Amino acid sequence: MTRAGIVGATGYAGAELVRILAGHPDIELSVLTSRQFAGVRFDKVYPSMTGSVDLVCEDFSADLVCDRADIIFLALPHKLPMAVAPQLLKKNKRVIDLSADFRFNDASIYESAYQPHSARDLLKDTVYGLSEIYSDAIRTANLIGNPGCYPTSVLLPLIPLIKEGYLDLKSIIADSKSGVSGAGRSLSITSHFCEVNESFKAYKAAEHRHNPEMDMVLSREAGQAVAVTFVPHLVPMTRGMLTTIYATLAAPWKLQDIGDCYSHTYAGKPFVRLCPDGRMPDTLHVRGTNYCDIGFKIDERSNRLIVLSAIDNLVKGAAGQAVQNMNIMLGLDETAGLLSIPFPI
Amino acid sequence: MTRAGIVGATGYAGAELVRILAGHPDIELSVLTSRQFAGVRFDKVYPSMTGSVDLVCEDFSADLVCDRADIIFLALPHKLPMAVAPQLLKKNKRVIDLSADFRFNDASIYESAYQPHSARDLLKDTVYGLSEIYSDAIRTANLIGNPGCYPTSVLLPLIPLIKEGYLDLKSIIADSKSGVSGAGRSLSITSHFCEVNESFKAYKAAEHRHNPEMDMVLSREAGQAVAVTFVPHLVPMTRGMLTTIYATLAAPWKLQDIGDCYSHTYAGKPFVRLCPDGRMPDTLHVRGTNYCDIGFKIDERSNRLIVLSAIDNLVKGAAGQAVQNMNIMLGLDETAGLLSIPFPI
Amino acid sequence: MTRAGIVGATGYAGAELVRILAGHPDIELSVLTSRQFAGVRFDKVYPSMTGSVDLVCEDFSADLVCDRADIIFLALPHKLPMAVAPQLLKKNKRVIDLSADFRFNDASIYESAYQPHSARDLLKDTVYGLSEIYSDAIRTANLIGNPGCYPTSVLLPLIPLIKEGYLDLKSIIADSKSGVSGAGRSLSITSHFCEVNESFKAYKAAEHRHNPEMDMVLSREAGQAVAVTFVPHLVPMTRGMLTTIYATLAAPWKLQDIGDCYSHTYAGKPFVRLCPDGRMPDTLHVRGTNYCDIGFKIDERSNRLIVLSAIDNLVKGAAGQAVQNMNIMLGLDETAGLLSIPFPI
Amino acid sequence: MTRAGIVGATGYAGAELVRILAGHPDIELSVLTSRQFAGVRFDKVYPSMTGSVDLVCEDFSADLVCDRADIIFLALPHKLPMAVAPQLLKKNKRVIDLSADFRFNDASIYESAYQPHSARDLLKDTVYGLSEIYSDAIRTANLIGNPGCYPTSVLLPLIPLIKEGYLDLKSIIADSKSGVSGAGRSLSITSHFCEVNESFKAYKAAEHRHNPEMDMVLSREAGQAVAVTFVPHLVPMTRGMLTTIYATLAAPWKLQDIGDCYSHTYAGKPFVRLCPDGRMPDTLHVRGTNYCDIGFKIDERSNRLIVLSAIDNLVKGAAGQAVQNMNIMLGLDETAGLLSIPFPI
Repeated sequence: MTRAGIVGATGYAGAELVRILAGHPDIELSVLTSRQFAGVRFDKVYPSMTGSVDLVCEDFSADLVCDRADIIFLALPHKLPMAVAPQLLKKNKRVIDLSADFRFNDASIYESAYQPHSARDLLKDTVYGLSEIYSDAIRTANLIGNPGCYPTSVLLPLIPLIKEGYLDLKSIIADSKSGVSGAGRSLSITSHFCEVNESFKAYKAAEHRHNPEMDMVLSREAGQAVAVTFVPHLVPMTRGMLTTIYATLAAPWKLQDIGDCYSHTYAGKPFVRLCPDGRMPDTLHVRGTNYCDIGFKIDERSNRLIVLSAIDNLVKGAAGQAVQNMNIMLGLDETAGLLSIPFPI
Repeated sequence: MTRAGIVGATGYAGAELVRILAGHPDIELSVLTSRQFAGVRFDKVYPSMTGSVDLVCEDFSADLVCDRADIIFLALPHKLPMAVAPQLLKKNKRVIDLSADFRFNDASIYESAYQPHSARDLLKDTVYGLSEIYSDAIRTANLIGNPGCYPTSVLLPLIPLIKEGYLDLKSIIADSKSGVSGAGRSLSITSHFCEVNESFKAYKAAEHRHNPEMDMVLSREAGQAVAVTFVPHLVPMTRGMLTTIYATLAAPWKLQDIGDCYSHTYAGKPFVRLCPDGRMPDTLHVRGTNYCDIGFKIDERSNRLIVLSAIDNLVKGAAGQAVQNMNIMLGLDETAGLLSIPFPI
Repeated sequence: MTRAGIVGATGYAGAELVRILAGHPDIELSVLTSRQFAGVRFDKVYPSMTGSVDLVCEDFSADLVCDRADIIFLALPHKLPMAVAPQLLKKNKRVIDLSADFRFNDASIYESAYQPHSARDLLKDTVYGLSEIYSDAIRTANLIGNPGCYPTSVLLPLIPLIKEGYLDLKSIIADSKSGVSGAGRSLSITSHFCEVNESFKAYKAAEHRHNPEMDMVLSREAGQAVAVTFVPHLVPMTRGMLTTIYATLAAPWKLQDIGDCYSHTYAGKPFVRLCPDGRMPDTLHVRGTNYCDIGFKIDERSNRLIVLSAIDNLVKGAAGQAVQNMNIMLGLDETAGLLSIPFPI
Repeated sequence: MTRAGIVGATGYAGAELVRILAGHPDIELSVLTSRQFAGVRFDKVYPSMTGSVDLVCEDFSADLVCDRADIIFLALPHKLPMAVAPQLLKKNKRVIDLSADFRFNDASIYESAYQPHSARDLLKDTVYGLSEIYSDAIRTANLIGNPGCYPTSVLLPLIPLIKEGYLDLKSIIADSKSGVSGAGRSLSITSHFCEVNESFKAYKAAEHRHNPEMDMVLSREAGQAVAVTFVPHLVPMTRGMLTTIYATLAAPWKLQDIGDCYSHTYAGKPFVRLCPDGRMPDTLHVRGTNYCDIGFKIDERSNRLIVLSAIDNLVKGAAGQAVQNMNIMLGLDETAGLLSIPFPI
């Protein structure tokens, strides 16, 4: 059994990691840290876990975590992982970071969106953990920058089309809608029940930090600069993310062409589900799962492709993909611990 | 006091008309019809109204309604109003129809989206009731086709820009999100609580019947064919509609230019509120009101304008705008009965 | 026009006062204070109010408020009003306090539930503002302790029955369910969207501070000690409170007897609506209104009465009742400003 | 591998059975029937299951189901199972019925709450499937009447106390609150999104059909007639049920006594979790699980015990308990297939 540790276990992404790893057949969940809840049983913070998880949260120290775990997940706000990861890597631990700190190979992009980077030397070797696309690099990586939830929902549907030249690269728009858990467990008026319930709104239109992240990956895949127009919105529900992508087709491609492109790219990729003709992805269908559902349609009058993707922002958009990456790194079945049967509603 | 009647008073749009007209200072709400609830007190169907409305629903007959009312609202599913309206007009009543039946001057567009039209001769004189834009024609109209909720949320932000040539007309995309009340009170699995709650999805992408409606109006205003790519989505909340519009600017216009365009178009139009810089429209801010809030942003990398609009789909998107049109038709203050102070949450 | 001021205008109860008073025909809303938002326009905190309220929040000072207002609402957390009210009363202002500070004539009860009271001398003259019951005393009061939301929902259905001896006083249980707005706008994990959504739970069972408040009033009305067993619960919705009361009948009374008791007590009281037989109160039917809906049923096998009441916790449970009290104090129609037509949904 | 079949697989309880049985390590899910969806793939009705369940729904026939399955779950509306079960039992199948048809040994109670019973002879041998309490009888039963959701939430906390004489039997009140999924997938205005959302109400107070069911079981356990006053309420959420029980203690028992009673009754019962002092059950903590969380408090002034229980109405209240019963019947570990790690939120 590989021992896994979670640094920052009591945020929503951390807690979702606890859920998945506690049920993982090949993993021993061995250490949880939490600054806010050090000394407190994890199941006191998340009482649903009573009877499932009996660990006590501990204060982080690199020694503690390295002693107790073979592979380490960082579920911390950005800026903290860049201080923590180097200590863990030095002790030959493998690290999967769920923040933005190690998603960019180019420090300048990170720094323009976030703040100065204190571990720039690690960036050249970090691997962007979009599991379906970069599994080869993930397999041998020691440090994974786990993708953001929005980029995951945008990149999985776009990369196959972009690589094969189906799209006018200047035309890409991503209109995303996220459940409130994406904002985390930290208190904020924007997650206060009465301000979110019965409310729908956009935020950070064309200035969200996940925009440079998706642009970076798409530009790499396209071999030229891609600048997506990206607008995220907040949906009054706990989990789920739907992204509606609009892009002009580079030629009058048909539904069949698009379908073929997805089918061959994602053949043998169990977590990408293509919706049969006519059905549209729905966040309810992926709630609590690691699936990314993809559907599409062509507006023939404008030769514009509409692609929809649905994920659970906490699973495929965070903890689930992180575990999928761990599975790949450890040579386990990619789906290990990630295939519990979905709820019907 | 002008006497107003509502045909189809127990659907959600009808009931919202009841709410507004029952509180209108210049109107006597005089007759309500309902097929399903004929003979039943209205406040038994909507108990919130107990003490406010003491009318009994009646079976529709043209004689009954024309005897009792001077102006008549039709809140029926499309196809029924085209049979009813001619009878009412013949008796010199003024009619405001909330369905699609009288929104199109060109029967062929209607017929390709809906079904054969049995009152084609009325179409040349019907007026599209987008209050802020067509008030002159509304003033003297006898038959108003009250706009659909989605078109209202798309047209109010687009028309000023299109009329003044700010946009590349081939580039327009409208990504709309609606609360569930837009689907009405008729039972359907798509409005069944457990199928909607914690769910977010698109439906009828690029094939919704409101698409030809918005195209028709925009084409008229632009003086050339406009084909919007339109994708509606369903939000797990009762009321509210947010539309995110994407369009390439015809030149590198600045925020100030766009703001000026809106300011002068909507000066003196009390129901359009421009969001101050940085704030984004939120359906919660217009819940229960007749406002349309508009905000915007430019993605400078792509020279693409992002415009957001928020309305209450049952008010500005249906009953509120219908009453606003009535006010204009009757020479009342446009805001009469429509300015109750909004709820903070 | 009487000038009204609100101290603490940006909490939920304060903002609801703003909504009601801004639309009140006989009142000029003249001053708003807020510690957190001093210097900020009120409609920036609550953008729904844009176009309706153009006041700027100010820092509280007794001089400022007394200069600008004739009657003053305190919408502050308990403990603050006991410091503020004496300053205002000294200047001959009339004060309606929405906190618990002036609900108790007996300081010792207050102090055992809250903390030491620094304005004990005022308590003998404060009037408990349960409008339907204590209107005579309210009329001439200078200081009103506006009832808590839970007590309002418990007392309105219980007092008539208790006064007329219908109930076994030892048998009374109140099981209340409140929307989340009752917890206010202050940030707390218990109002964090993802912790409340899809959650239902009790809290402070048999130890909520509103328990001694309802006991005090019931004991006074009964002429003997009454100790209600009270358990509040949290419902994943914004507004609304439903209370289910259980009490053994003192004799085998029939539905008709109970109905008669309510009918004669609440005859001429426009805000109490008795549900016709068979219908049960629903928070949706009172949302945004000052109504208290009451329904009841007898479990004949146990001779136990079940009474249900529904209010909007922010209106009849807070701001609406405060304005109702103001109307009574000023000799206005009790319903002035409080009768906007309710929403159907 | 035991083969399991589900008759009525596309209702919510049926679909939840599919979820659990498809993931059960010792079961092959072998046949699904559905009248409405015969011939349709199950994952077309519940697209979340795509990739997990590839069965096609079939029209029911006793031969078909008996050929294909060893143990059969009936997830049908009451009245249908009494026609179906005899055919299956005749072929020596073991049957677990989720409706009310086989919950009563005394046909007259059933008939006064439902309708005439056409399989009365089976009632003497049917076993009430409250797993923790009747496991001995369940082990050897051929026909299980799986408990209703409300009775499960009421009986698990009450039976231990009643058996040991802690309660005044005339004093018991159960105030239950259920998520909307309890009303099933059949269309009804009472499950229509806009009528439920932001609404909280009671229904069928003191006349719900689950009342005689809980009374029957409690009377049996008490050895004398028990008549609970039972009021169910509807919560605007999908899953979850919380019951608040009030009962006068037969003597001034202390918290410790009650805790001891529960501890020894439920020792070794993995699905009953006693909340540590001070914490209260929350439906969010049992969402998607087979747990029943129990908490309690004493209102010492009235010597009244308050017990709270939380279950997921579709799991411990329906499909989960049915599978637990199957596990017991088949001699499997009681928890097989039922212990996936709960979600943190």
